[in-house]
Amino acid sequence: MKNIYLIGVGLIGGSLALDIKNLDASTTIYGIDKNNVHLDIALEKGIIDHKAEIQDLNNADMVIVAIPVDVTVKKLPKLLNLVSDDALIIDVGSTKEDICEAVKNHPKRRNFLAMHPIAGTEFSGPNAAITRLYKGKTIIICEVEETAFKLQEKALKLFSDIGMRIRYMKPKAHDKHIAYMSHLSHISSFMLGKTVIEKEKNERDIFDMAGSGFESTVRLAKSSPEMWTPIFEQNKTNVIETLEEYIQNLEQFKELMKNDDFEAIFKEMKNTNHIKEILKGIQ
Amino acid sequence: MKNIYLIGVGLIGGSLALDIKNLDASTTIYGIDKNNVHLDIALEKGIIDHKAEIQDLNNADMVIVAIPVDVTVKKLPKLLNLVSDDALIIDVGSTKEDICEAVKNHPKRRNFLAMHPIAGTEFSGPNAAITRLYKGKTIIICEVEETAFKLQEKALKLFSDIGMRIRYMKPKAHDKHIAYMSHLSHISSFMLGKTVIEKEKNERDIFDMAGSGFESTVRLAKSSPEMWTPIFEQNKTNVIETLEEYIQNLEQFKELMKNDDFEAIFKEMKNTNHIKEILKGIQ
Repeated sequence: MKNIYLIGVGLIGGSLALDIKNLDASTTIYGIDKNNVHLDIALEKGIIDHKAEIQDLNNADMVIVAIPVDVTVKKLPKLLNLVSDDALIIDVGSTKEDICEAVKNHPKRRNFLAMHPIAGTEFSGPNAAITRLYKGKTIIICEVEETAFKLQEKALKLFSDIGMRIRYMKPKAHDKHIAYMSHLSHISSFMLGKTVIEKEKNERDIFDMAGSGFESTVRLAKSSPEMWTPIFEQNKTNVIETLEEYIQNLEQFKELMKNDDFEAIFKEMKNTNHIKEILKGIQ
Repeated sequence: MKNIYLIGVGLIGGSLALDIKNLDASTTIYGIDKNNVHLDIALEKGIIDHKAEIQDLNNADMVIVAIPVDVTVKKLPKLLNLVSDDALIIDVGSTKEDICEAVKNHPKRRNFLAMHPIAGTEFSGPNAAITRLYKGKTIIICEVEETAFKLQEKALKLFSDIGMRIRYMKPKAHDKHIAYMSHLSHISSFMLGKTVIEKEKNERDIFDMAGSGFESTVRLAKSSPEMWTPIFEQNKTNVIETLEEYIQNLEQFKELMKNDDFEAIFKEMKNTNHIKEILKGIQ
């Protein structure tokens, strides 16, 4: 793939571009972004080789769509209209159901591959892009059978060369499980940050007491609201369900404390310690 | 201080002993622990030089009490009875009010300094002990004026030599603020782990979807229930208050989602992003 167009030169798209360039220096990467400052940074950092415009897409062998998921839903059908019959379009969004639905009956559906690389940091923009972000990470591919064989093959080879572990899921299952494995963590972290800031806003010294425990738990509260608001909107039903279960577990923990049932509190924590083995299994 | 007795040779006490030994190799560290396997590991790792018994404490220049906070409350008065008039006893517990209360009227109250180093990892036991855990970290000292001048001086010099930033607080204020800055993070993390495990227990493959976001947010759910149950018990009132505020914030976030008020969701996250600057300030 000689000519790759990257739409959205931020953390996720930018890091992918860096890895692709590292694999094959002869690839030319064109950047498209509504933020011209980001494009300049991407040029400077070597994430992209040239700036480009949407109307240039007929020249693309591959298009990477790495923009907020609401914009992806809106723009993806138009992008498919613009590319050649041999081009591959992939997206990297954290939701998959609405995005797949948006192009379900598109005459060029076979030119699109829906995917979600499970990787990232709490930072955003081209300055946050890093090489090897995806090394050893999982990539979820949805509705692989809807994509043309040759394009599937190209994409899978690329992800595997980058070092990703490929998994297949239906969009509905992806959105349901990712609500637990990612979206809930973000809300839990944002609300932890909010609770502490509200309480401690008049006592800035207190943040001296923020040990590494608080820091890691609140890390995701640094994430971009521009990116996360449309994710929560698209995955509303699943996210509300996870939130209800989370709140119920917190309520129950609180009740156990109120009733001085610290034997049960101990058991709750002991059972959850099991997360150690689970996380070890995925590393 | 030639002879130091370490009661509890785990992560917190063990790491402190390693730093003390690094500062002055002529110090002899004696280890006391109800777990003989831990004592053997501590010997092997060079955390302690010799095993010892409680009745040897009359030989101590300093005693470090690094055991669960409920045991500290019970044992501290007896330990004070055992040490010489020139000895210093310090504790490292995550709660301070009950511990200070327990020795309030003790004839040897001046031999005790209440402290809480804000440092640690999610691991426990002597194998988790590491050097330089405390470098650049905050140590909270409570009721410093209740400790004999000479012993204050010795302790402060030691903490400062280890590289800690010393802060003074009243026990009541310590317990109130640490509930927000540390205890709530642990519960938030434990309940996140519980919610996800409950949901996903029959689909182990799903944990492949656990990206770095979930991992860092759930990290504290690996913490020791033996250590944390008595902390929550001693700080019950403050912890319940923080939990109520946290649950209320989660409920409100859920209601905004239910009402499709994603403009408000965006603002919630934008306001909390501010945590970036706060945390940067403390690093």
